[in-house]
Amino acid sequence: MRETQQAALAQAMTEAASLVERRLDELLSPAVRGHEQARPARLLAAMRHAALSGGKRIRPFVLIETSGLLGVDAARALNAAVALELVHCYSLVHDDLPAMDDDDVRRGRPTVHRAYDEATAILAGDALLTMAFEVMADVATDADAGVRIALVAALARASGLGGMAGGQALDLAAETATEPLDDAAIRQLQAMKTGALLAFGVMGGAILGRASPEQSSALATYGAALGAAFQIADDILDATSSAAKLGKKAGKDAARNKATLVSRHGLASARALCQQQVEVALAALERGGFGPKAARLASLASFVAERET
Amino acid sequence: MRETQQAALAQAMTEAASLVERRLDELLSPAVRGHEQARPARLLAAMRHAALSGGKRIRPFVLIETSGLLGVDAARALNAAVALELVHCYSLVHDDLPAMDDDDVRRGRPTVHRAYDEATAILAGDALLTMAFEVMADVATDADAGVRIALVAALARASGLGGMAGGQALDLAAETATEPLDDAAIRQLQAMKTGALLAFGVMGGAILGRASPEQSSALATYGAALGAAFQIADDILDATSSAAKLGKKAGKDAARNKATLVSRHGLASARALCQQQVEVALAALERGGFGPKAARLASLASFVAERET
Repeated sequence: MRETQQAALAQAMTEAASLVERRLDELLSPAVRGHEQARPARLLAAMRHAALSGGKRIRPFVLIETSGLLGVDAARALNAAVALELVHCYSLVHDDLPAMDDDDVRRGRPTVHRAYDEATAILAGDALLTMAFEVMADVATDADAGVRIALVAALARASGLGGMAGGQALDLAAETATEPLDDAAIRQLQAMKTGALLAFGVMGGAILGRASPEQSSALATYGAALGAAFQIADDILDATSSAAKLGKKAGKDAARNKATLVSRHGLASARALCQQQVEVALAALERGGFGPKAARLASLASFVAERET
Repeated sequence: MRETQQAALAQAMTEAASLVERRLDELLSPAVRGHEQARPARLLAAMRHAALSGGKRIRPFVLIETSGLLGVDAARALNAAVALELVHCYSLVHDDLPAMDDDDVRRGRPTVHRAYDEATAILAGDALLTMAFEVMADVATDADAGVRIALVAALARASGLGGMAGGQALDLAAETATEPLDDAAIRQLQAMKTGALLAFGVMGGAILGRASPEQSSALATYGAALGAAFQIADDILDATSSAAKLGKKAGKDAARNKATLVSRHGLASARALCQQQVEVALAALERGGFGPKAARLASLASFVAERET
């Protein structure tokens, strides 16, 4: 039963990823219908390198699945899902920069500043972030301007000073801090750096699907727990996996003496904490009363915690 | 008469700048009412350094003036104006980075990556850009969600791949190009790099002020000409002024062998081309039928062309 569910999840993720990639490919074409603006070739190529290099496309999948739970079909959720993925792609480009995490490889390929140059990587990230908001604002996202503006506002909040960008700043600060972070600070950092954007996947889906306040509240809990489980699993993978498997450097946290729940409590405890978050996520879906339709989001929580890349 | 008009313009610009700065100061406070998100202190400080270091605030002024022409008072235009200024501030932070223009001084103060560090400067730029969209999406911008979403979309188009970020990419490419740019390529680059955001000041004001199609068309011409005049004047200043006066490095274009209308045609021709754009701008205001209310936008076109910093 469990294996069947995971197989169904894998298939749904593959299908969603393929929709997302087709749309990204369209958006990042040299000429886009209805957009007469010039598109500088090298910058566009760098953006394509960043956005079309595979990846699991977990965030857009979460948005598509959550809105699907509320009756929105995948095609109608695609624009919002792709806007979210563009933000994720930009963040990887900037995080990889020499002044930040200084990574040469991402998904088994050279990072954007290695394949192009640093200035182009900075601009490609900027332009991907900007495009995210252009895509979200487009009428293709939803016919109701009120829904679109709520999505723009929520995406901005998840991505900026109080969300992902702020979390990355806290992460960099932690590397040079004299005192190691305590658990509360680690959780706060992770909720901002990784959790906020995953949680937007859930809440963006809730906005698009016109969730009731009760449904929204349950989904918010699910989203926060999903994000926490995802990040603890990431830290576990960094400590236990190889670069060949991850498609990026492994063992970075230990090399930088970074405080994570793994470094503070050991692998076994981190695994238990991760599993705890999965339980919270499942309980929230239960509470939301979504019934069997929520099976894939439930499988996703387990997948995120147990994934190997 | 002309001097009186320029004095009136200067006063209006000072008043608008003071409104803009007060609102930026509020938005970049450690705690903002209704926003319970954590705000990492060092990142916030870097954003304040970038956004609260003076400057003429020309772009928000243009938006406030244009919407004012259409009956929107300054207080109601302020949110949209500040969103635009946030995009401008982010662009300066990223343009100054070592991998881009590598500037140490801006408005007479150290640039953000010099005052903080490069990673913080990248993130501060990212967070300012993101905040721009959050601010624009806020209900304070306009009660009508349709107007807000139109503003978000137009701001994104002006700022991204086909606008400012794309223009900066073309500018960097031109420095290492084997063939110097011709006039058409220079104009295209400048229309994207500098023109698009200034033109958004005008068109954002038109959206906020519910301009008629005729008014919009006239204002679009005004905005494009204003942007062109601004950039030619910038190139003239770079060639003729001193760092002490500009508050940033001078003579950069010649040092980098950058093709500008000044380097291609000489100062006298560039001045004539700049004046030509001012005439186009004034004719467009005339055509829009705005009457004496447009006097300040008219003065602004001359000011932009003749400014000394």
